[in-house]
Amino acid sequence: MPGLLTFTSDFGITDSYVAEVKGVLKALDPELHIIDITHWLEPGNLTAAAFVLLHAFRYFAAGTVHLAVIDPGVGSERDILAVRTGRYVFVGPDNGILQEAVEADGGGSIFALEIECFFKKLSSLYRGNDVLQRIVKQGPSATFHGRDLFAPLSAYLCGGHPLEEVAVQKSSMVEYRIMRPMVCEDSVTGKVVYIDRFGNLITNVEENLVGQEDEIFLKTDRTMTLVGRLKNSYASAGRGAPIAIIGSRGLLEIAVSGGSAQAQFEADYGNDILVMKKQNGGLWI
Amino acid sequence: MPGLLTFTSDFGITDSYVAEVKGVLKALDPELHIIDITHWLEPGNLTAAAFVLLHAFRYFAAGTVHLAVIDPGVGSERDILAVRTGRYVFVGPDNGILQEAVEADGGGSIFALEIECFFKKLSSLYRGNDVLQRIVKQGPSATFHGRDLFAPLSAYLCGGHPLEEVAVQKSSMVEYRIMRPMVCEDSVTGKVVYIDRFGNLITNVEENLVGQEDEIFLKTDRTMTLVGRLKNSYASAGRGAPIAIIGSRGLLEIAVSGGSAQAQFEADYGNDILVMKKQNGGLWI
Amino acid sequence: MPGLLTFTSDFGITDSYVAEVKGVLKALDPELHIIDITHWLEPGNLTAAAFVLLHAFRYFAAGTVHLAVIDPGVGSERDILAVRTGRYVFVGPDNGILQEAVEADGGGSIFALEIECFFKKLSSLYRGNDVLQRIVKQGPSATFHGRDLFAPLSAYLCGGHPLEEVAVQKSSMVEYRIMRPMVCEDSVTGKVVYIDRFGNLITNVEENLVGQEDEIFLKTDRTMTLVGRLKNSYASAGRGAPIAIIGSRGLLEIAVSGGSAQAQFEADYGNDILVMKKQNGGLWI
Repeated sequence: MPGLLTFTSDFGITDSYVAEVKGVLKALDPELHIIDITHWLEPGNLTAAAFVLLHAFRYFAAGTVHLAVIDPGVGSERDILAVRTGRYVFVGPDNGILQEAVEADGGGSIFALEIECFFKKLSSLYRGNDVLQRIVKQGPSATFHGRDLFAPLSAYLCGGHPLEEVAVQKSSMVEYRIMRPMVCEDSVTGKVVYIDRFGNLITNVEENLVGQEDEIFLKTDRTMTLVGRLKNSYASAGRGAPIAIIGSRGLLEIAVSGGSAQAQFEADYGNDILVMKKQNGGLWI
Repeated sequence: MPGLLTFTSDFGITDSYVAEVKGVLKALDPELHIIDITHWLEPGNLTAAAFVLLHAFRYFAAGTVHLAVIDPGVGSERDILAVRTGRYVFVGPDNGILQEAVEADGGGSIFALEIECFFKKLSSLYRGNDVLQRIVKQGPSATFHGRDLFAPLSAYLCGGHPLEEVAVQKSSMVEYRIMRPMVCEDSVTGKVVYIDRFGNLITNVEENLVGQEDEIFLKTDRTMTLVGRLKNSYASAGRGAPIAIIGSRGLLEIAVSGGSAQAQFEADYGNDILVMKKQNGGLWI
Repeated sequence: MPGLLTFTSDFGITDSYVAEVKGVLKALDPELHIIDITHWLEPGNLTAAAFVLLHAFRYFAAGTVHLAVIDPGVGSERDILAVRTGRYVFVGPDNGILQEAVEADGGGSIFALEIECFFKKLSSLYRGNDVLQRIVKQGPSATFHGRDLFAPLSAYLCGGHPLEEVAVQKSSMVEYRIMRPMVCEDSVTGKVVYIDRFGNLITNVEENLVGQEDEIFLKTDRTMTLVGRLKNSYASAGRGAPIAIIGSRGLLEIAVSGGSAQAQFEADYGNDILVMKKQNGGLWI
């Protein structure tokens, strides 16, 4: 069975950066299958990176290596991490983007790459491999550790080689948590934490915090809008009508049937979402 | 030989939706090869979906599963279809996007998924598969049947499992036909049915309806332009000159050499194309 | 071990063109692995094509077939080339885009496809292959040799079939060289030759032409800016500060920490970069 690796970055796909990473991966592990999560994260947006990784990782088979390179600190002293959880290995820079996913998979053992030792190991493992020799001879570039360090490390791990021989265990990594909603007795206040390509506003309010009879409001910089109660499908509202719905991440989303909630409400990341709980035996307001 | 699946959607590739579908596919069929047709169809644009599928499907080997998820009715009562034609299986929502391709492949047997029965079958088939167990346990989300239903169904079919055990045959599916041109004795009137990334205006006028001496006009909201007669290559016209040419789909296209016909003519979907037939032994006008 | 092919084009990924090429490739070589370099080259921009290919090809394993279709002359008399170098085969139109990469790999043997002979060979090799039969029966379209000629040729070569049987050797191909910098005793004057998705300005000034104490200037249509001396990482400058750095191609790049140099300086392709050499024992100005 071929190895499987997912690849998340902010490299875009208009240049050859993503391809160079894949070239190195395939040069070291020709049978490897690679799935792109996305490469269109906003440059350096650690929140978006953490969010995307958190919600995508679990749909891949156990044994998958998840590589995420959103790395504004490339070339600085930040560590290069590999984190082994129960089902996966996560590889990325030590800037917080891996944490939510690692925790959601039950936590893991954190390792920091020892570059010099790793390159020695690579040289002996992949003797005669042109691409690897080029990488080792050049040494890591100042600007592209995705190709020069993260790719070889990921291929090494996909090949089943022992992490312990090229990295040292650490007790912690940089902390980064996606904001949690504020839960009160009669309301939940959350935030828009992600906006997708359809203009759906994905909030940090989890499914279990919203009842079928609660009333949901969206507050942007300009207006406060009553979206209404939870719907069961996009199609259950008229075209152009706003909908509150539990989306595929188990989170409350604000959408517009056949349109874009982002455009219609001039909404943005960080806007407030307010869930007013149905009062027992009373009105909600 | 690994299975082959094509994947067409309006999900875009800036989010992780496409990747989640692929994760599920590969979790159930690790050897599967996946080719993206495109994920940048305009959200909910059924015409574009039908057009792209119609013109791409035939370049894939017999046995390919063609998955198309342009599904504005997700979460409503629309059926989830698998249509078996002579050479392929097409999988998608019952909203018309499969019809033109199915007909072009000679028609097929239409099946509608029985969700409950399918999930039972999956549970026993993929016992011990983490990803499948998650999908089954969660149940289909309200907004993302691509991941929760279409992907498992496609993987099931790629694995050669019998469609009949999880779906019921139907006599018909939702009808949707790309508009045909109007053919008169001395003219053919067609429409711009697709505009590609180069700004080429692809019409519904088929190759056999245009003679080498016919004169071709483009009518937009603003102007009527004489494009001229058929050319044999983009390069055969001067830079910036409009060209009528038979494109790679066997359809009449209006292009601009080294430029964009869409931009130059301020053209749009639905604009008219007029082919004036050369009169026998006379002038065309 | 499966064959590996890279694919570079200006087709974009909003249409099905890229997928049709891949469909043909996989129909003829089902085990083939395909890596996209990029498909978002500016339509017909031969410089960008040559640049991207030049800097990406070397990160792929020996034996890789590099297919590049940026082909504004499609349908004209330009040749269809396959160039065999020490480690790779490059396939593309004879318009200059392959030259820099071929030279960087030590030069190669240039072959021009004999279309009629090739189609005969294909017909007998892939007897019973639906997709190939369709391609041969249709004949090459006027607008899409990527699908109709380049893809079959690439698959043929990935399959290890002899180039000599379907192509004739040529002594030369169309010349195209990315501009070189002007090197004087006390300065180097280069150009911005590529701008990436981050807005980094990549110049044609190679690493060995810039000393640690040289002062670097950027000259746009509007202003002349002192960028300063070489830095070792993006992060070593304050947010929003311009940086001169040796990028991952071994070329001098102008970047802005946490921002876009292109936007900040209103810079463009062809802008000048000036490296003032540190005078021995003196000031640089």
